[in-house]
Amino acid sequence: MQVDWERFLSDKVAHRLEPSLIGEMMKLVKELGAISFTAGEPSADLYPLEELRASFDRAFSEPSLFAYYPHNGGLLELRRWIVDWMKKDGLAPSWLTTREVLLTNGSQEGIHLIAEAFIEEGDAIIVESPTYPEALLTFRRQGARFLSVPVDREGIVPEALEALLEKSGPVKFIYSIVNFQNPSGYTTTDERKAKILDLARRYDTILVEDDPYRYLRYEGRPQGSYFALDGDGGRVLYLGSFSKIILPGVRVGWLAVPPELAPKMTELRVSCEISLPAITQYAVWDFMKDRDLPSYLATMHDAYRTRRDALALALREECGPLGLEIDVPEGGFFLWGRIAWLDDVVSFARYAITEEKIGFIPGSIFFADKADGRGTVRFSFAKVSPDLAREGAKRLARAMKAYRSSMAGS
Amino acid sequence: MQVDWERFLSDKVAHRLEPSLIGEMMKLVKELGAISFTAGEPSADLYPLEELRASFDRAFSEPSLFAYYPHNGGLLELRRWIVDWMKKDGLAPSWLTTREVLLTNGSQEGIHLIAEAFIEEGDAIIVESPTYPEALLTFRRQGARFLSVPVDREGIVPEALEALLEKSGPVKFIYSIVNFQNPSGYTTTDERKAKILDLARRYDTILVEDDPYRYLRYEGRPQGSYFALDGDGGRVLYLGSFSKIILPGVRVGWLAVPPELAPKMTELRVSCEISLPAITQYAVWDFMKDRDLPSYLATMHDAYRTRRDALALALREECGPLGLEIDVPEGGFFLWGRIAWLDDVVSFARYAITEEKIGFIPGSIFFADKADGRGTVRFSFAKVSPDLAREGAKRLARAMKAYRSSMAGS
Repeated sequence: MQVDWERFLSDKVAHRLEPSLIGEMMKLVKELGAISFTAGEPSADLYPLEELRASFDRAFSEPSLFAYYPHNGGLLELRRWIVDWMKKDGLAPSWLTTREVLLTNGSQEGIHLIAEAFIEEGDAIIVESPTYPEALLTFRRQGARFLSVPVDREGIVPEALEALLEKSGPVKFIYSIVNFQNPSGYTTTDERKAKILDLARRYDTILVEDDPYRYLRYEGRPQGSYFALDGDGGRVLYLGSFSKIILPGVRVGWLAVPPELAPKMTELRVSCEISLPAITQYAVWDFMKDRDLPSYLATMHDAYRTRRDALALALREECGPLGLEIDVPEGGFFLWGRIAWLDDVVSFARYAITEEKIGFIPGSIFFADKADGRGTVRFSFAKVSPDLAREGAKRLARAMKAYRSSMAGS
Repeated sequence: MQVDWERFLSDKVAHRLEPSLIGEMMKLVKELGAISFTAGEPSADLYPLEELRASFDRAFSEPSLFAYYPHNGGLLELRRWIVDWMKKDGLAPSWLTTREVLLTNGSQEGIHLIAEAFIEEGDAIIVESPTYPEALLTFRRQGARFLSVPVDREGIVPEALEALLEKSGPVKFIYSIVNFQNPSGYTTTDERKAKILDLARRYDTILVEDDPYRYLRYEGRPQGSYFALDGDGGRVLYLGSFSKIILPGVRVGWLAVPPELAPKMTELRVSCEISLPAITQYAVWDFMKDRDLPSYLATMHDAYRTRRDALALALREECGPLGLEIDVPEGGFFLWGRIAWLDDVVSFARYAITEEKIGFIPGSIFFADKADGRGTVRFSFAKVSPDLAREGAKRLARAMKAYRSSMAGS
């Protein structure tokens, strides 16, 4: 090596990034031909491919989409549709216009833009414990100092948040996944939202509301959003996504921000990539605009509800007696589990996939402080048929037995 | 306003970004229905829309493209095609594999990734004088300190570069647009490249080679790349783009890096957006893979050569007598001009578009130190028919006359 890259690389890239363990597990699943409870992504058999193909084809009647798109925030028609949709669903304050909506390359890009816009090295931010690891990755890259707040079945625990805010000093923002949280599956209730928003106001901090799973609710009452609840407060940034309800490969999500932030976020976008492909945004708009969403979503919900119930039943029957406890959410993709006797979940996950060809995600990666994830595991049911659920649960049970024996013997 | 955003925003977003003046000029062109010599983008009448439509349609035979694409660097088939193509054209060192090629959302995203990977606040980088303003924007956002090196018709002036490196202390990288540079139209000769690469080695710095216009050569001998010339040196990062030879709206470019950097750049990509749409990358691959490129490009070259010559002639005849001098490049999109008696080119550009409805880009925005751009102007001929060229040149001449009179009178 003739170049000493350490001398050239920024601190963030040299020292604060790391490979994704979810990526590693998914690669192992593929290489080993394992049964997979790993991927938090929609099931390919539910992709509306033929309708999306027609929507892409219609984009070709609009040659202007193929130039540099003049609005750096993204396709106006889709932003308009999002504004209307969010208002109709009671998710947006009345002031929201297209100006405050920036289309993103999936929610992750929204997280990236927020990280760039807010975090200076050493800044404190509050994350849920557990939370989405690629958000931790991006916030850590920017130099964030994490303060973890526990979540329970109703969301962030307000008393814990208050205690944290009281002793922490200034906090740049609170990052919360509000519906069917990744990985816990928990949903923040509106009652909790009111308390948490009140705390955000009293301690003068910002709320980043990440909401990719909202429309994957299989039962129960939909909850509102911080973004609408805040009204004219202008203290909430909202992240939405089409990845889960259309398909991930279109890479279209959005970020809605308070009016004061809109010009800065657009300038930041220009510096990152000028603009995103308007073609894919057009296809999403064309696909969504006249659709009967309740009936479209109902088909999806039926499939995922069946898979959720089958995997929950199989895991309880096969692995419950061995000490696995699981939480079953009202929507989303994830069952969240605990194995009380298990310390090192990463070792166990590697063992289970190698020895029994069953893949799942060790829970420790979802915690800013990995030690907090002791004994936790995440199972995704989105792509798992009832037959595979049973076979996978049996494999997991074998892995648990053998691993426990090896622990006892060591 | 209830939130004091100054307290929350990062320094880069609060203070280092600014609206794009090119964006402002293009918006004015549209609002005023002006003749435009502004946009550095391909002409829509040359978009291969029907072929691209078929390529997009074929993507729908590959459902795996619509999931989260497993390679964060982008579609393997396209990266393989790029590696082969670059080697066949003598642009890549023999060690290059798909591992070192990251597909990007246009070249701007490559610039963004490089800025994130290398620049810490206060770091010195060397930019050409003049250079691409959105690169300046992104590098400035990251806190770069600019050192400007002059370019002439053969590229960066080696003696000036050496003097700069000698007195500057460590420099993170040299950013150079090597073919038909934006805005000057100048191309770095291979003789110059050898001298500049030698200086980069002696002073231990990196070369960032931005090459979006390479395949828009209308005459003359193609030049090689720093990337190939460096061989096993591993000191060059190469940025390529399909925006100019297919169309900008697909938003597909690439970044090729030395082997040691590849894993870090992929991790950085994950933190920014997980992955880009594999669909658009597939369409680009499908479009390019069996194409007879020389004959495909020849049609494009003929059209642009005609437009270049028509605009150059019209400007010389109409505006030459008023003091406009222009450089005519062997390719690309731009004529670079100087008006010796003109100080404030931004004021003049606003005057010309408002009063005479003729749009062009004031040259000062292409300089890290705007004062260096005194009297310079950029004209793009890519979208200008010969008729419009003549009418636009007449309007510019009227604007020059009237503006000069008003200067004399003030």
